[in-house]
Amino acid sequence: MKSKVINYGAGPAKIPEEVMAKARDEFLEYAGTGVSVLEMSHRSVDFTSMKMETEKLLREQMSIPDEFDVLFMQGGGSGQFAAIPLNLKGNKSSADYAVTGAWSAKAASEATKYLTVNEVFKPTKPYVTIPEYSTWQRSDEAAYLYYCHNETVHGIEFHNPPETFANVPLVADVSSDILSGPFSFKNHGVVFAGTQKNLGMAGLTILIVRKDLLGKESQMTPSVMNYNVMAMNKSNYNTPCVYGIYLTKLILEWIRDLGGVHTLYERNMAKSSYIYNIIDSSNGFYTCPVDKKYRSIMNIPFRIGGTAANEELEKKFLVGAIDRGMIGLKGHRSVGGIRASLYNAITIKEATQLGDYMLEFMEER
Amino acid sequence: MKSKVINYGAGPAKIPEEVMAKARDEFLEYAGTGVSVLEMSHRSVDFTSMKMETEKLLREQMSIPDEFDVLFMQGGGSGQFAAIPLNLKGNKSSADYAVTGAWSAKAASEATKYLTVNEVFKPTKPYVTIPEYSTWQRSDEAAYLYYCHNETVHGIEFHNPPETFANVPLVADVSSDILSGPFSFKNHGVVFAGTQKNLGMAGLTILIVRKDLLGKESQMTPSVMNYNVMAMNKSNYNTPCVYGIYLTKLILEWIRDLGGVHTLYERNMAKSSYIYNIIDSSNGFYTCPVDKKYRSIMNIPFRIGGTAANEELEKKFLVGAIDRGMIGLKGHRSVGGIRASLYNAITIKEATQLGDYMLEFMEER
Repeated sequence: MKSKVINYGAGPAKIPEEVMAKARDEFLEYAGTGVSVLEMSHRSVDFTSMKMETEKLLREQMSIPDEFDVLFMQGGGSGQFAAIPLNLKGNKSSADYAVTGAWSAKAASEATKYLTVNEVFKPTKPYVTIPEYSTWQRSDEAAYLYYCHNETVHGIEFHNPPETFANVPLVADVSSDILSGPFSFKNHGVVFAGTQKNLGMAGLTILIVRKDLLGKESQMTPSVMNYNVMAMNKSNYNTPCVYGIYLTKLILEWIRDLGGVHTLYERNMAKSSYIYNIIDSSNGFYTCPVDKKYRSIMNIPFRIGGTAANEELEKKFLVGAIDRGMIGLKGHRSVGGIRASLYNAITIKEATQLGDYMLEFMEER
Repeated sequence: MKSKVINYGAGPAKIPEEVMAKARDEFLEYAGTGVSVLEMSHRSVDFTSMKMETEKLLREQMSIPDEFDVLFMQGGGSGQFAAIPLNLKGNKSSADYAVTGAWSAKAASEATKYLTVNEVFKPTKPYVTIPEYSTWQRSDEAAYLYYCHNETVHGIEFHNPPETFANVPLVADVSSDILSGPFSFKNHGVVFAGTQKNLGMAGLTILIVRKDLLGKESQMTPSVMNYNVMAMNKSNYNTPCVYGIYLTKLILEWIRDLGGVHTLYERNMAKSSYIYNIIDSSNGFYTCPVDKKYRSIMNIPFRIGGTAANEELEKKFLVGAIDRGMIGLKGHRSVGGIRASLYNAITIKEATQLGDYMLEFMEER
């Protein structure tokens, strides 16, 4: 019997119960093959068809246009922070970066190894908002314009992609909000995500790249990071994370059966609104520092006790949460406070249980 | 009920049944935590202690000296083909490579992106032997001397590490024979393995590096490939392959409980001798092209019908094997023929079953 725990962690994170049950049922043997997915050759017929099915499901659920390749890589988002400049630099010398939080800052820092990084605005710390697109200092000479679609640590989300020049493709890190709602590939060159938040386990990276951008890589690009090499080898240049691809397939089937990304978006809006409403109507007991226009529907960072947060109370809140089986709520060590991650697998009921605890905790003070 | 199949595949490969049973039992919830290992934060107390325990077990079972760090990385052996020159180059301009088969050839080719590769002997194709160490053209100016401890495709294994200059550390790819027998770290600087053959699933790479070699990396090194960054962050620079580390821990416990690496070595010798004896006493019906001094105890490539292999018979052999539930025996597409991979998880009984089929198949001709 499984202990009663709700996992609000920022990732690796909750996987839908239905998916876990199915994965457990076929853990020892996959579909009559006699072997576990963990033991399956990456060149076998069974895995090849599983990989193709995963790609097909992803294309359907994300509405990925035909001019994009889908690659299965390793190394997470952090690996892409190097892979992106290495692959997309071509004959350009610079790239534009929108630094809106910890992850885009990390991406920009890594990219300075390979090209000149132009920050399109001066990052305003602490990270709480995104400057109006019209104020961005973009260059039409940039190899690409990089942004993080959802800042997991700071809870800042783009609800519309930024504007860009026709010849400057957007590069989007969607690690923490992939398939949380509709996403338009318009103007994008690369869209990527580690799967350990909304699409499965740690160890697999989904990389979606416009085919005309392949072949622009620096000669220094390690082959396992080379989009062109990976595309030519159908993600089998090295042994891919076989089990990760399998889990992602199960999650994509779960999304499809639930009604697709629009259904998930409604669920996610309901979940996050419930928590944000409690914060905003708490008369300052709870505060979320993020500009309302850019609040994330996946990761909600908040403090207790107003601007001068009461760390004592926050500690009590977290201890009380754990007593109730609510785990993963501690804010990122760089910002402190509380963070509720309400990924796709978190149900409306689980979100309201958190909200109810927040109300109860506030009443008791 | 699991179908009766024996998986002689080259990797991803068979995982010990006892390990699979344990992993299935705790698939939904790990040790009373309320969550699956797949859902566990890489910064949680539970995972941190699991990671430390995995390292401790690996150090014990491999007798890793204290002057080495153990890192958990991603990207497989192929990722290391770039990471090694990027990390170890320092102020040197070249490295020595012993090309004894497909994998060391791939490593040497990747390294040419970052430094001058000096092949210490002219590779003799087809790959069937290793030239005497005394004939190797080594340089004491080399950043390191690279070799592949076991060539998975060609079935060529070093039974003793090569000789090297005192200031030229050995770099060993042990992906396909890690923990198959005793291994001496003497003279080594880096020892690495993808875990998908003897230590678990695809998606995790074990990297063992001598601490005094840290900090010599090129400025172009992607952070996820940077040994120094990974060591400083205790393999948590990016999210590691959490489930892979867990599975490796279970396999290391299985090795310990079985009696350790010496017991495994005896088992592996018994298994491979059984097959090699059948080949060698078949009067040329079966042939293994590899020099007896360097035959692998893990991967046994063989042909049917002598030097001019009878592909028709080989096809019949493979079809008959599948009828008996013996899978993964097809030779690598680059060499053809048959290949039996007898990794640690393959029991003596399973090896003799293959041998018995070989005898039976020969009798019927």
